[in-house]
Amino acid sequence: MNPPKPAETQTATLAEIAREAGVSAPTVSKVLNGRADVAPATRSRVEELLRAYGYRRRRAEATRSPLIDLVFHELESAWAMEVIRGVENVARDAGLSVVLSESAGRLTPGRTWADQVAARRPHGVILVLSELDESQQALLTSRSIPFVVMDPAGDPGADVPSIGATNWQGGLAATRHLLELGHTRIGAISGPSRMMCSRARIDGYRAALETAGVPVDPSLIMAGDFHHEAGYRLGLKLLDREDRPTAVFAGNDLQALGLYEAARELGLRIPEDVSVVGFDDLPVARWVGPPLTTVRQPLTEMAEAAARLVLDLGRAQEKPVATRVELATSLVVRSSTAAPTG
Amino acid sequence: MNPPKPAETQTATLAEIAREAGVSAPTVSKVLNGRADVAPATRSRVEELLRAYGYRRRRAEATRSPLIDLVFHELESAWAMEVIRGVENVARDAGLSVVLSESAGRLTPGRTWADQVAARRPHGVILVLSELDESQQALLTSRSIPFVVMDPAGDPGADVPSIGATNWQGGLAATRHLLELGHTRIGAISGPSRMMCSRARIDGYRAALETAGVPVDPSLIMAGDFHHEAGYRLGLKLLDREDRPTAVFAGNDLQALGLYEAARELGLRIPEDVSVVGFDDLPVARWVGPPLTTVRQPLTEMAEAAARLVLDLGRAQEKPVATRVELATSLVVRSSTAAPTG
Repeated sequence: MNPPKPAETQTATLAEIAREAGVSAPTVSKVLNGRADVAPATRSRVEELLRAYGYRRRRAEATRSPLIDLVFHELESAWAMEVIRGVENVARDAGLSVVLSESAGRLTPGRTWADQVAARRPHGVILVLSELDESQQALLTSRSIPFVVMDPAGDPGADVPSIGATNWQGGLAATRHLLELGHTRIGAISGPSRMMCSRARIDGYRAALETAGVPVDPSLIMAGDFHHEAGYRLGLKLLDREDRPTAVFAGNDLQALGLYEAARELGLRIPEDVSVVGFDDLPVARWVGPPLTTVRQPLTEMAEAAARLVLDLGRAQEKPVATRVELATSLVVRSSTAAPTG
Repeated sequence: MNPPKPAETQTATLAEIAREAGVSAPTVSKVLNGRADVAPATRSRVEELLRAYGYRRRRAEATRSPLIDLVFHELESAWAMEVIRGVENVARDAGLSVVLSESAGRLTPGRTWADQVAARRPHGVILVLSELDESQQALLTSRSIPFVVMDPAGDPGADVPSIGATNWQGGLAATRHLLELGHTRIGAISGPSRMMCSRARIDGYRAALETAGVPVDPSLIMAGDFHHEAGYRLGLKLLDREDRPTAVFAGNDLQALGLYEAARELGLRIPEDVSVVGFDDLPVARWVGPPLTTVRQPLTEMAEAAARLVLDLGRAQEKPVATRVELATSLVVRSSTAAPTG
């Protein structure tokens, strides 16, 4: 009835893997440590066996560097800074430094991004809107490097620990706010439909309309991406028509600012002629004119939660159960929304 | 006539330092590697001798990690992201990852920030608006870790390689633009006076006024800091008076946005009632209403230049000559400036 000792959870030892791969144990070690001086074919063979046997480096073997890896799909994101701050806060308290990287286009021949991480031996990896494929997951797992996905774009999978926000609730709250002000013709601009966070926001918007008995008009829902330019371009389309909506729920704050620009260009005043709600509550939302009503996504707190979770996973002796945490979004009412006129 | 070999530039060997400190050579090594298991008194004695002898680790001894350290005084800066992107661009091309840290409040007892960097052995260190004291400089130099200061707040010292921008020229160009539009009553909000970049901008402003024969009115120059709140608070002071200026040169874009808020609160229109020029050209400058006329500081390019310089320094065999590069600022005219009315 005793719990299994860590060693017993190993399905194969390093020596057994070496034997099966027909290489020496130090060669397997080199692969585990992400060293460059291993032939690509050997590396793949060893990685495959590590994966097949579910090999996990034991804690005693894993000398960790005082680092946390923070990986963005691309650093262009306007809210990257909020996330960096959150991870930095937790890392500092734990005496760790943050290694920043981009997964997009980072690959060097023969050595993947995950190899580089394995070579660094950080305490953990936080991935922001980046998907980890199965072989990358296996690679990190075999090195006992825990990872957490923050705000996953897609479905991170049931066994991937992740931190998100209540996107659906946020879309619901934003749209209810507009309905309560008296709007019934409410447009929406979405983020990319492949991102679950984006779909969830629009689904919340629909749910608010439907539960209020307001029919959903598909022509008022524009599919975009999360950049300023999409808000501007699709904002022009939405607002430059006879039956324009009196309010728009934008997919995020940057889109909302693009929408501001479109409204200015068309000579429409915010909120008199059109109300606008954003999503994220970036610092800039307070500074624009008029200050933006938006759904606050607690990005810094989410990043802190992700960093704490990844450190907790690193301390755990056993493989942890799957963990998914969603932090609450909240509506912040400023001056870009008002009752419809006329 | 042959150049001295690297070994000859050493004034003392590791063994000599150990002898003089009364410790073993491995202990000196531990100090050099930033290891924690050295008594604080021993550590200080060794550091002092390393400094006194101008010890520099030879390249053969220095096994570098594929990292670049990027240190901010504090990450709160709105333009931190622009800098991170620049360093990341160069690091990626060089196959390096970026370690991000804050120097403010980062100290842990017995181990300074610089010790942590020494233990990491990065290819180089880029410091943003952070001053490096003499003992920190000596510590990095003794480990042969090159460093570059970006946009120094104060006077970085003649022998510290640094990258800046032409702040004085920027202040001049901003103010000349307002003079050319016909403004003669031009206010200014400065950053902290201890920062040279801030002083240089205001000096450029004065020079423009003086060379145009417009007397400088000290009551129109407000001393602030680089935050949004200062622009708002000092903006209210500047604009809520009988003889208010018809134009204001703000110390940076965030201040300019604070000034926007002050103008809105006072019912003043931009640019009809007051013209505003910022400094930095953050992405948000394009997105606010009206889009902000500002002095573009090429932050990403400056960060790229700093990263390239620090890598060049690391490759150099000899101690390099002092390097100071200033990249050009340029005026970007948008919609927040116009001729004075009335």
